Amino acid sequence: MRSNVPECVSLLAHAEASFSTQVHKVGFNLSNKSSKRIAIFGATGSIGRQTLEVLEKIGGFDVAVLSAGSRINELIELAVRWKPGRVTLADKRYYSQLKNALFGLRINVDAGKDAAAKAAAEVDYDIALNGLVGVAGLLPSYHSLSRGIDLALANKESLVLAGEILNRIAEQTGAQILPVDSEHSAIWQCLRGEDIKDVERLIITASGGPFREWSAEQIEVATPEEALKHPTWKMGAKITIDSATLMNKGLEVIEAYHLFGIPSEKIEARIHPVSIVHSMVEFVDGSFKAQLGTPDMKHPISYALNYPERCPFKPKKDDPIDWPALEFFEVDKAKYPCFDLAYKVLKKGGTAAAVLNGADEAAVERFLSGGIKFGEIFSVINKTLNRHVNCNADSIEDVIMADSWAREFVKGLKM
Amino acid sequence: MRSNVPECVSLLAHAEASFSTQVHKVGFNLSNKSSKRIAIFGATGSIGRQTLEVLEKIGGFDVAVLSAGSRINELIELAVRWKPGRVTLADKRYYSQLKNALFGLRINVDAGKDAAAKAAAEVDYDIALNGLVGVAGLLPSYHSLSRGIDLALANKESLVLAGEILNRIAEQTGAQILPVDSEHSAIWQCLRGEDIKDVERLIITASGGPFREWSAEQIEVATPEEALKHPTWKMGAKITIDSATLMNKGLEVIEAYHLFGIPSEKIEARIHPVSIVHSMVEFVDGSFKAQLGTPDMKHPISYALNYPERCPFKPKKDDPIDWPALEFFEVDKAKYPCFDLAYKVLKKGGTAAAVLNGADEAAVERFLSGGIKFGEIFSVINKTLNRHVNCNADSIEDVIMADSWAREFVKGLKM
Repeated sequence: MRSNVPECVSLLAHAEASFSTQVHKVGFNLSNKSSKRIAIFGATGSIGRQTLEVLEKIGGFDVAVLSAGSRINELIELAVRWKPGRVTLADKRYYSQLKNALFGLRINVDAGKDAAAKAAAEVDYDIALNGLVGVAGLLPSYHSLSRGIDLALANKESLVLAGEILNRIAEQTGAQILPVDSEHSAIWQCLRGEDIKDVERLIITASGGPFREWSAEQIEVATPEEALKHPTWKMGAKITIDSATLMNKGLEVIEAYHLFGIPSEKIEARIHPVSIVHSMVEFVDGSFKAQLGTPDMKHPISYALNYPERCPFKPKKDDPIDWPALEFFEVDKAKYPCFDLAYKVLKKGGTAAAVLNGADEAAVERFLSGGIKFGEIFSVINKTLNRHVNCNADSIEDVIMADSWAREFVKGLKM
Repeated sequence: MRSNVPECVSLLAHAEASFSTQVHKVGFNLSNKSSKRIAIFGATGSIGRQTLEVLEKIGGFDVAVLSAGSRINELIELAVRWKPGRVTLADKRYYSQLKNALFGLRINVDAGKDAAAKAAAEVDYDIALNGLVGVAGLLPSYHSLSRGIDLALANKESLVLAGEILNRIAEQTGAQILPVDSEHSAIWQCLRGEDIKDVERLIITASGGPFREWSAEQIEVATPEEALKHPTWKMGAKITIDSATLMNKGLEVIEAYHLFGIPSEKIEARIHPVSIVHSMVEFVDGSFKAQLGTPDMKHPISYALNYPERCPFKPKKDDPIDWPALEFFEVDKAKYPCFDLAYKVLKKGGTAAAVLNGADEAAVERFLSGGIKFGEIFSVINKTLNRHVNCNADSIEDVIMADSWAREFVKGLKM
């Protein structure tokens, strides 16, 4: 099995050795006029593009790295505009084409599966924004934190797979993990100035996805087109399907557990169809605090990049009178069986969460390509979890192994 | 006019002289097992009674003072239960009766208009809870703060009349003003850990009172019985009428201005009929934070008494799924003309706010006794304000004079 480990993991030894010497914490400060160098992983995706929109408005940042998957034309366009020190593409086949397009711009070009992680480990930058989708985001997160560099994190898989490991590293190097998910940003904002011991519970809100008012029978056979119609947020395909199964909310429960150190029995979800309340905290004295606003990912991005300051950049004018009525409903666990799997794997610990995530990514892929029915996404993940022999997750290699195993298992599963 | 000044003002000189010697700040701390001595002004009123309910649950407090207006039987009952060092009644006629009823309990008994203020100035206590209604609350607030004693403040008139004066004194003695109003408690909670310069605006929520869906013509001739039916909060008569005119919300705007140091153009109100969102703050980055919960005054009382800790006492089990749909509407200024008067007096400064408040108290009294129509409350206050020659409000005497003048003017006003 060892041979399955991606090449970029070889950088791990280097990263771990550098803990004591390479720590250069950045205290990003609006009043500090010198620019901060930012590395953007997932630059052509929804989060990456919105991050660049935010940077355009607020200023004060130089782009050090732009990293994308396969959208070469969009990456070229962004590279010409932002002139980063390094540009990477996961898809090796386009290397020459990318190199030629950026010729003469003094941009270091790299391509291949490990190119993003290598950039995270090698390039000089002060803050990372990780907007990669799926497990591909793990190694860039790992390398940024290992170098003591703050990480604005939209890639939930980093924490789902390796929450304990990344928290341990961040503690050692003094780097901060700054959540970019709207839900976790909301909780983080509600916790400002509060004592974590005063938290009664976190209430993560969920739109309920496109099938909120469908029957269980209808959902069972929903098509990819139907599942991709998210009512409030525009996001990538994988995360949109995860919103329809509520697997996304389950992954967010795991993420919240690692970000805030709150036990899973104190983390709940409520369906809130209009997505104005981005999440809530209830305190031990019965007081609820919520963070609200018309949905716009530019807000949590800007909040993370400027933290602890608030940057006077409003994505748009917003007022409570323009909001639809705010309602909250219980999560119907029969309708959303994936959601409960998060609590199951948190109870198990070890590599279970990595298997959950790998199985989910592979199952969603099979669903999107027409290989399985919507209702079978749950069965596939559940079967994989039941078959998995849980191990300790002490290193990044352990969780990458578990993830790879889960994907392979799902691919071979007869449905 | 000087002869109109109440006797208790004679204590002022003493209080001001004692700034430098009598400052004994209390840092109330849950983990500190020794009891805190609390003085409760307005003990038999809605806030006072709920405060005692909270103390019963959370423990850790000794009652030093119980102060009431005229409800002698209720005061006797509370005094027997709580055994305070001093009991006061505003109504002098009941002095002997009160004295006899508490004979042998080692309770110091006082009665008369100045008895509460005298207790505030003389008795030893560590924190004051001021739940008095109207201008009667001003001197107890003044004396507590002058002695460097933290003040949990439900009496909005203290700040409406003398916000600058009380803030100046609190700054000199190091005492804190801890808001107990649900709206200001909400804003205070939303501001925890935030920088006041990041506030875009405060949004005070208002239930809209019993006439929210009435036409302006219907409201004009509403009866006291109709105006006393508040949809969400159970409160005293004066404050309930103020909720129907939205004068209450105007006074809260003035209070917020003094509590948080936010200019009036950044303080707005929104009608929120179900009173679940107790108020909100919008920040410069477009993020809104709200404090929420099923209405219960015991929450802001407990929050103020335990600040900065949160006491694990929940008035009741509460969950977002049990809340009605949350909606927000603009304040119809034609329907609620009193509301705008708050901005008018904040612009004027000086004694204008004291006149607004005195005129409002007197006008509400005239309305409740059938002397004027509901719609005339506004006209009475407005006429009084227009007639008032605005003066500097440098001392407590200045604002008490202005208040007395306004009341006399309203009494004499032919409608």
